[in-house]
Amino acid sequence: MKNNIRHTSGMYGNIKLFAGTGCPEVAQKISRYLNIPLCGRDIDEFSNENLWVRLHESIRGQDVYVIQTTSRPVHRNLMELLIMLQTMRLDSAGRVTAVVPYLCYTRSDKKDKPRVPITARLVADMIEIAGADRYMTLDMHAGQIQGFFSIPGDVLSAFHILAEHMTKLLPQMKDPVVLTVDLGFAKKGRNFAAALGLPIAFIEKRRPTIKGAAEALTLIGDVKDRDVIIVDDEVDTGGSVAQAANLAKDYCARDIYLTFVHPVFSDLIIERLSKAPITRLITTASIPISPRKLAKIKEMCKTDILDIAPLMGEVIRRAHEGRSVGEMFDE
Amino acid sequence: MKNNIRHTSGMYGNIKLFAGTGCPEVAQKISRYLNIPLCGRDIDEFSNENLWVRLHESIRGQDVYVIQTTSRPVHRNLMELLIMLQTMRLDSAGRVTAVVPYLCYTRSDKKDKPRVPITARLVADMIEIAGADRYMTLDMHAGQIQGFFSIPGDVLSAFHILAEHMTKLLPQMKDPVVLTVDLGFAKKGRNFAAALGLPIAFIEKRRPTIKGAAEALTLIGDVKDRDVIIVDDEVDTGGSVAQAANLAKDYCARDIYLTFVHPVFSDLIIERLSKAPITRLITTASIPISPRKLAKIKEMCKTDILDIAPLMGEVIRRAHEGRSVGEMFDE
Amino acid sequence: MKNNIRHTSGMYGNIKLFAGTGCPEVAQKISRYLNIPLCGRDIDEFSNENLWVRLHESIRGQDVYVIQTTSRPVHRNLMELLIMLQTMRLDSAGRVTAVVPYLCYTRSDKKDKPRVPITARLVADMIEIAGADRYMTLDMHAGQIQGFFSIPGDVLSAFHILAEHMTKLLPQMKDPVVLTVDLGFAKKGRNFAAALGLPIAFIEKRRPTIKGAAEALTLIGDVKDRDVIIVDDEVDTGGSVAQAANLAKDYCARDIYLTFVHPVFSDLIIERLSKAPITRLITTASIPISPRKLAKIKEMCKTDILDIAPLMGEVIRRAHEGRSVGEMFDE
Amino acid sequence: MKNNIRHTSGMYGNIKLFAGTGCPEVAQKISRYLNIPLCGRDIDEFSNENLWVRLHESIRGQDVYVIQTTSRPVHRNLMELLIMLQTMRLDSAGRVTAVVPYLCYTRSDKKDKPRVPITARLVADMIEIAGADRYMTLDMHAGQIQGFFSIPGDVLSAFHILAEHMTKLLPQMKDPVVLTVDLGFAKKGRNFAAALGLPIAFIEKRRPTIKGAAEALTLIGDVKDRDVIIVDDEVDTGGSVAQAANLAKDYCARDIYLTFVHPVFSDLIIERLSKAPITRLITTASIPISPRKLAKIKEMCKTDILDIAPLMGEVIRRAHEGRSVGEMFDE
Amino acid sequence: MKNNIRHTSGMYGNIKLFAGTGCPEVAQKISRYLNIPLCGRDIDEFSNENLWVRLHESIRGQDVYVIQTTSRPVHRNLMELLIMLQTMRLDSAGRVTAVVPYLCYTRSDKKDKPRVPITARLVADMIEIAGADRYMTLDMHAGQIQGFFSIPGDVLSAFHILAEHMTKLLPQMKDPVVLTVDLGFAKKGRNFAAALGLPIAFIEKRRPTIKGAAEALTLIGDVKDRDVIIVDDEVDTGGSVAQAANLAKDYCARDIYLTFVHPVFSDLIIERLSKAPITRLITTASIPISPRKLAKIKEMCKTDILDIAPLMGEVIRRAHEGRSVGEMFDE
Amino acid sequence: MKNNIRHTSGMYGNIKLFAGTGCPEVAQKISRYLNIPLCGRDIDEFSNENLWVRLHESIRGQDVYVIQTTSRPVHRNLMELLIMLQTMRLDSAGRVTAVVPYLCYTRSDKKDKPRVPITARLVADMIEIAGADRYMTLDMHAGQIQGFFSIPGDVLSAFHILAEHMTKLLPQMKDPVVLTVDLGFAKKGRNFAAALGLPIAFIEKRRPTIKGAAEALTLIGDVKDRDVIIVDDEVDTGGSVAQAANLAKDYCARDIYLTFVHPVFSDLIIERLSKAPITRLITTASIPISPRKLAKIKEMCKTDILDIAPLMGEVIRRAHEGRSVGEMFDE
Repeated sequence: MKNNIRHTSGMYGNIKLFAGTGCPEVAQKISRYLNIPLCGRDIDEFSNENLWVRLHESIRGQDVYVIQTTSRPVHRNLMELLIMLQTMRLDSAGRVTAVVPYLCYTRSDKKDKPRVPITARLVADMIEIAGADRYMTLDMHAGQIQGFFSIPGDVLSAFHILAEHMTKLLPQMKDPVVLTVDLGFAKKGRNFAAALGLPIAFIEKRRPTIKGAAEALTLIGDVKDRDVIIVDDEVDTGGSVAQAANLAKDYCARDIYLTFVHPVFSDLIIERLSKAPITRLITTASIPISPRKLAKIKEMCKTDILDIAPLMGEVIRRAHEGRSVGEMFDE
Repeated sequence: MKNNIRHTSGMYGNIKLFAGTGCPEVAQKISRYLNIPLCGRDIDEFSNENLWVRLHESIRGQDVYVIQTTSRPVHRNLMELLIMLQTMRLDSAGRVTAVVPYLCYTRSDKKDKPRVPITARLVADMIEIAGADRYMTLDMHAGQIQGFFSIPGDVLSAFHILAEHMTKLLPQMKDPVVLTVDLGFAKKGRNFAAALGLPIAFIEKRRPTIKGAAEALTLIGDVKDRDVIIVDDEVDTGGSVAQAANLAKDYCARDIYLTFVHPVFSDLIIERLSKAPITRLITTASIPISPRKLAKIKEMCKTDILDIAPLMGEVIRRAHEGRSVGEMFDE
Repeated sequence: MKNNIRHTSGMYGNIKLFAGTGCPEVAQKISRYLNIPLCGRDIDEFSNENLWVRLHESIRGQDVYVIQTTSRPVHRNLMELLIMLQTMRLDSAGRVTAVVPYLCYTRSDKKDKPRVPITARLVADMIEIAGADRYMTLDMHAGQIQGFFSIPGDVLSAFHILAEHMTKLLPQMKDPVVLTVDLGFAKKGRNFAAALGLPIAFIEKRRPTIKGAAEALTLIGDVKDRDVIIVDDEVDTGGSVAQAANLAKDYCARDIYLTFVHPVFSDLIIERLSKAPITRLITTASIPISPRKLAKIKEMCKTDILDIAPLMGEVIRRAHEGRSVGEMFDE
Repeated sequence: MKNNIRHTSGMYGNIKLFAGTGCPEVAQKISRYLNIPLCGRDIDEFSNENLWVRLHESIRGQDVYVIQTTSRPVHRNLMELLIMLQTMRLDSAGRVTAVVPYLCYTRSDKKDKPRVPITARLVADMIEIAGADRYMTLDMHAGQIQGFFSIPGDVLSAFHILAEHMTKLLPQMKDPVVLTVDLGFAKKGRNFAAALGLPIAFIEKRRPTIKGAAEALTLIGDVKDRDVIIVDDEVDTGGSVAQAANLAKDYCARDIYLTFVHPVFSDLIIERLSKAPITRLITTASIPISPRKLAKIKEMCKTDILDIAPLMGEVIRRAHEGRSVGEMFDE
Repeated sequence: MKNNIRHTSGMYGNIKLFAGTGCPEVAQKISRYLNIPLCGRDIDEFSNENLWVRLHESIRGQDVYVIQTTSRPVHRNLMELLIMLQTMRLDSAGRVTAVVPYLCYTRSDKKDKPRVPITARLVADMIEIAGADRYMTLDMHAGQIQGFFSIPGDVLSAFHILAEHMTKLLPQMKDPVVLTVDLGFAKKGRNFAAALGLPIAFIEKRRPTIKGAAEALTLIGDVKDRDVIIVDDEVDTGGSVAQAANLAKDYCARDIYLTFVHPVFSDLIIERLSKAPITRLITTASIPISPRKLAKIKEMCKTDILDIAPLMGEVIRRAHEGRSVGEMFDE
Repeated sequence: MKNNIRHTSGMYGNIKLFAGTGCPEVAQKISRYLNIPLCGRDIDEFSNENLWVRLHESIRGQDVYVIQTTSRPVHRNLMELLIMLQTMRLDSAGRVTAVVPYLCYTRSDKKDKPRVPITARLVADMIEIAGADRYMTLDMHAGQIQGFFSIPGDVLSAFHILAEHMTKLLPQMKDPVVLTVDLGFAKKGRNFAAALGLPIAFIEKRRPTIKGAAEALTLIGDVKDRDVIIVDDEVDTGGSVAQAANLAKDYCARDIYLTFVHPVFSDLIIERLSKAPITRLITTASIPISPRKLAKIKEMCKTDILDIAPLMGEVIRRAHEGRSVGEMFDE
């Protein structure tokens, strides 16, 4: 079967998959894609909140992949990842790859004012010091964050997957246009629009210069009588996208599609989305969504959750076999 | 006033105190002891749980002390500490000292079985990589953990404080004996007993060899008709000490005093202590105890919470001034 | 005189300024601003192109600032910087700060395709390994590059200076609008527009999808009958800005002002600018421009070269004295 | 033959065994166990005491094991180990493992008073910097020392071997009880007693509080009319164990068995043991004992020297083959 | 065919050869020797002089050799090497070896006066930080420079090749003697003389003690009526060797042969050699010589350029296969 | 008094001198030169040969100098140095300088054959990892060894002192000539000769090409009827210099003076010197010579032991005060 791992001369031993508790479903799907079972491990939390890990089998000299997201509960998940990485290293793994579908703190990636941290660099340092030889993740807030790591990594993009899905929906849309809600996302939004062959529009936000005055929003570009595809990298409270959807309506847009990679979805998301004229929401399974929350969202708008496990699984396979990942994307 | 900092030629600039959100009371007390105000800082949590820090003033070239515990919520508190340390480093502090009254994960300090982490080493690595030049903490689970750090540190002991306090209580006790509940604490228990001039006894625990059988407990030494001082480094659920207190009673002990440095106190503590014949509980303020929990404990037994801020404050002062800390303890 | 250095207890010794051969004029101006002479040094190039450095005075325990740009000749200038940094380190400097008005390779800051370098990270690593304890630079291509360094740094922005200058020109303009030529610069362009209180427009470029077809350019936003301020971080061949100026004209813009921080100005600049309807060019002295080239540019359009030495000099002073840099910008 | 190395796809090349001059017998036995000859090397000492090493064969890309103890002459043996490790690294070994049956300085593992070193950490750092990718040793003074290394290691215990041997002797003993001579060894002593299914007793030592007075020794637990098994990790001058044996006799113990892992055996050992009522001494071959010294000890008491080469050899094999070491001990 | 790579179990994947732009001919010859094609890559220089690299194929997990010299243009070539190394590392190469026929800056290898750099160490640090796991080079100015690297390396000597060639010429010479032009090369000169079985003479240079006086040259040893073989590691402007040749003539030497490893050959070489009585020049192809320059030299004296590609190719092969390099030289 | 330390604003605290047990006399003399007492410390050796150090006073934030040689007993002295350095670091010293009059293993500074160590680099790494921020030493075997350290250092030369002393002796000599015994020392020998204004001669040694044949020695240069000054960096067994002295006599030299920096003096020295026609021996006190050995040498030839404490003391003072060391030597 084509999905099985090729037993090459394998410089880093055999492949071993481990899952943290952060994204069990993604881990399971990767395991199924690769046709390789997840290795057993205990992850316990003591009454003092300290975590403890024990592997059920030796990974000496093996090519280990630790699949663990760092979405909510962020700090516990991050610590779990780090402890697992150290355990692998101390147990003489041949190579350790941190597989993190969603990497936390990537929005803290620069000092835009004095005396603030660059926490994304700190997280990169922590992953390295814990013992990762490599890392793998999906769509970080800025491409530059890859430069925060001194270890090699595969930073994959799920926009390929979103674009492929949107392409299927295009025939049913009217004069669609892509809309970005943050100017920092303008270039990536353009790339997404170009992949779909669509024009692009931007929302520009300005902080009020007079205290107490409202934030000023401008929509630059043409959305009138068009279906609008709002695109972003992640959605958390949904505040910005709700605002954008309403503004687009003010500018006489037709249906609003909302697409993004990471459904961070804090609790406010339900309320915010409920007030936004979203026709359809398209995201990925990079972050687990609670069934209750997902049900509520589905009540509000048509919702597509795209699978990212085949993408990550395929890259794990190629990384293990020493084959090109770029050629998956014709690069 | 004797508590004021000497303005020496100060190789590391002026002293700057910052507090995380983990132990505001200790930080305040240290500040008062040193007669130096805490510097302003914002610590925010975004809706996606990510933390963000901003300092209200520049610390360029200054001698910075970040006071932050890593007790419950452990991982958030730890991350807050690390982010603050990085912020100080990136803002060109002269020297950064992590002041951590209670350091988490020190019980994960060795591989007592295969394929487990040494998380205390990981935590030490994280503190160093974040940017601490030095650290300061109280009574870690094992003295060897100091060797996990490559940066210098001051690992202080509050047993001096506990012993001094117990000495005042001794006159009212009958034939007191010190009792340790874990053989790993035997040597430190002996030192504590020696400081008080008392004999010592031990509880030996054995895991059941027959499945389903109960754990076997033996009390080695003499507690009959004596007041018993149970001593340990920290108490979490209170399970072991409750068991020890009851066992001592079985061996005809009189009053039971319970003394330890770190009141970790998970939720189970109330229930466990309620079933234990504890006469008096003596601990320190190294970890904040919720008022509700403290009230309940005080209902059950006389409770003394000893202050550790003067100890930590004095060491901060001496570290800043380049003076001996050892001579505080006649060493 | 207010510009003199305060002789504080100075944790890092006295200030010592050294200049490489890359930007002698900026170094001289910083020296004059600080009222501190540049220290003597030999920088020789042997017949085999290898460089050699010798300091004329000892810098043991002193606070050293090496002022050297990494503009053309890029690699020689970079190597000169690195050799000077190492010389300072090996001669037991107290602290070494690399002062680099223009940092090379910052556009190579991410892996936007597989199998390419992140050379900006490499440059950061080289500066650190050579011996810099800190660095100082102006407007890097992306704010995230600060996270490539593990040493602290002051990344200053000259957009304050450009904005202040533009503000003086605004009264003579008609309905001015800011225009960015690259969507990756959209957010910074917005910040610049906001600082001036102006609206913003964007140029969107798309690679031709049909081979041989021309690149497609769209101007999004409103420039008709308005004076246009094209803003960017650096201008090299001038191709993009010339294209943008002409496109703006096609959209019936009035006068075109071109403003940017770094005048990289390769040889093509003269030809490109000569075909572009630029009314006035406003940039900084961050990179030396040859007198011949400057004369030609001045023939083509009114040209303002703003001084950055006071900014850098003031930050050096504050870094040395352990005072806030942020407060220079009310931050 | 079952002892031969499996020629797996071997990520770290072929196994290569080298021996220092510290423990030639152990090295020979490991070599025989693995059925792999020791590689040739010169180790010379010049007239200025400096050592020099030359390998007789290339170890490029191979999986190298350097077997060298750090017992007496401690510093020469340690240096020899470090030089061999560096030689392997510089000669492009695939992986280098330091195999050190007895690691020196493990008793200097914490700062139990101010201004003292943690030499065990220093030794760990030296082994890493010299070039070891991994290390392997037997029973260090404290389990935490494993956390002093950032490289992975196999810290094996010979107490399995001692316990197995003692079990065979138990039938001939009367009411045996385990006795520890140092409270710092209480927990490990308990584990040993539990493995044998025996009760435990402790000796508590207190420094004299009145100057000139004798050290106070107390035996806690029951040894009367029982055969006593004194257990410790190492015996050097034999002072403590001689004292313990005599004290046990004072408490009416019957025969005294003395068992421990490392026979450090300084010159005083003969005199000390000669005054101690030891019936039988059981230790391992982790440290070479001079034939003369061994003969004298055998005159004094029955002496069993247990082999540790099969244990170390088996772990080397498994480390090389990427197989579990834990499963050797049902863990 | 004997030159093909053995497909061993290859711990570092397959061999991959890449060439920089510095020494295309050597790279081609190594490729032919190994019967392995050079991998495709783009190396572009932007108009701002910044370089950019893109590999045409994935090198994940492979054993990569980057062949790039650091001769003229020195700094561009060095940067190209470093960028290629980083690209390999970030693309998850299995092992990266920098193959540098001529390493720049090796004459800056010590602080022979205060306040000067040790640039050779800086270059070593840069190669390591960029991502090389190993390096390979020919005859550095001092053997000690190998100690500047913490990574392993193969420092090969082409004096074997020169000696072999000279041996063939000896029969036609009259009473040949080896002459060194710098006392720092005395020992290597002796080794070369010993390899040829010839006596040796030295030139001693002294800086003038009286200002304005000429440098004093003494020839120590016997060259009268003998053919003289001047030997050195590299020749740049040719000043020293021209002086030496003339001095030898003054001492009544017969024919002068000039042999050295690295033809650095700055522009002055033509003029200098034209004034020197050189009969025959023997060097290697370690550094590319421009056809024009070579033609001029050939006009002046008989010139032999010896190939070093087979030597480097063979060492690459052995490094990849994990076989001894020393045995190539009977060592 | 001019020798007192200037109490500058002293960035690294006050000066603190500590001495190891290796060169107590040099340490005492440095202390006297600086008019600063040596700080108290215990250095004990346990019965298992392990060393233990305890400082008598705190060195927090101070500028510490650890004076310890690494001559015989080499490995014990080296370990003592390293342990002291670590103790200083862990006790939060402001800056730690290793002051090592004689650094061991500097002759193991290159791989002159395959599969040998570069132990001098290892020693440098060990000194750094132990905690030295800087180092100071006298005349290492090769100047390049300074490049083995990544920390700054002061490598002083005592040849200034030897030359000054010899100059006083010159008037009583007849046509003196300098003679080097090893071609690796030719350049330094030339520098020494130039400082004295004398000619130079060399001894060339060749290994026998025919087995069993004797080593071939040639004296190149003119010594006939001249007084000869043999110069070297160190003398160990005295074999080479004895051979050289006899050979010079064979070439009709007159008196033989022997001068060198480091009197390593292994036990063979007495026998070797006794057979050599040495008139006068001039060396330094960089290495302690046992009184018995010194007495015997003095019986054989006039012996001058020059003091190096003022040189080292003055450099310590200048390093502490942040003043130039180079200007001591008019550099």
